[in-house]
Amino acid sequence: MKCSVFIATSADGFIAKKDGSVDWLHTAGKPDADLGDDADMGFKPFMASIDCMIMGRKCMEMIHSMQLTEQQWPYGDTRIIVLSNTLTQLPAFPGKVELYSGDIKVLLKNLENQGHTHYVDGGTTIQGFINLELINQMTITRAPILLGEGIALFGKTKKDIRLEKCSAKRFKCSAKSLANDFIQEVFSVNYD
Amino acid sequence: MKCSVFIATSADGFIAKKDGSVDWLHTAGKPDADLGDDADMGFKPFMASIDCMIMGRKCMEMIHSMQLTEQQWPYGDTRIIVLSNTLTQLPAFPGKVELYSGDIKVLLKNLENQGHTHYVDGGTTIQGFINLELINQMTITRAPILLGEGIALFGKTKKDIRLEKCSAKRFKCSAKSLANDFIQEVFSVNYD
Repeated sequence: MKCSVFIATSADGFIAKKDGSVDWLHTAGKPDADLGDDADMGFKPFMASIDCMIMGRKCMEMIHSMQLTEQQWPYGDTRIIVLSNTLTQLPAFPGKVELYSGDIKVLLKNLENQGHTHYVDGGTTIQGFINLELINQMTITRAPILLGEGIALFGKTKKDIRLEKCSAKRFKCSAKSLANDFIQEVFSVNYD
Repeated sequence: MKCSVFIATSADGFIAKKDGSVDWLHTAGKPDADLGDDADMGFKPFMASIDCMIMGRKCMEMIHSMQLTEQQWPYGDTRIIVLSNTLTQLPAFPGKVELYSGDIKVLLKNLENQGHTHYVDGGTTIQGFINLELINQMTITRAPILLGEGIALFGKTKKDIRLEKCSAKRFKCSAKSLANDFIQEVFSVNYD
């Protein structure tokens, strides 16, 4: 069972402003920087490494508010499961999006039995997954901006949690371009 | 006028636990890793690049609680100014430690006139300095641990603040040793 996180935050650790907006993410740093093969900052290679995505209701609603066309849908054919204890049906979405309410560990066990080997969660649901000791690896892309307040990626934990195999990089730019000033950190989580 | 920050945080952005303790900083990651010339994670080269240090009262009290001997004093002969509007005298300290209460911009102007060209601030006072647009460069060393709660490095800002010239690295280790899993980020602050 392996759950990964791939998410962007501000340098002070927020995934969105208080109102849920992420516009700042698209204007932070140097959006016009030529990153060559890294233009998507690792998103496509990451998506290719997973075959199921689990997200919280708020994350889904944020994506829905973008009113993406099927062509703009960023998750390809990846199976997507939206966690909600309040929704009874999902807004119209392109692709394979399912609703789930219930025990997270049961869901993950079922996914494992169905042959899924790698899952990813996006949004504040991550905090719950960390406290269930279900996140094994995190890729955090830090945008070069301080927001001061907003929706934090991390929240309270039941105990101190050790991180391992940490690495960090900025994205290389072409000779003609400056870097975009985003930093990407990768680490494993050790709950022992 | 150039003010720099050189500080360690947890991966979730805390500089200390709620009670002010920083014990976790000394046990996070792999404290026994052989980092060679980077054993102090850049502290000495950084201190050599500055000639005056400004810190808040809480930061000074935390250092005082360590009951360091003159031999253990980490700041050498660097001039240290402690900001406090409540203290009238400082606890006994080795080295050159001064107390200041009053306007920060006046202090910095005086320091500049005295020939100081580079200052550093440690502790939560950083938040006030950022809102006065006085921090130009930050080096943040992220310990591989999630604390869940504590005293945050960053706080509310008057506006979004852009970061530039961002870089990140993990510390190289010798062939015989694993990395210590700390990550160091450096960036400039642009208040425009």
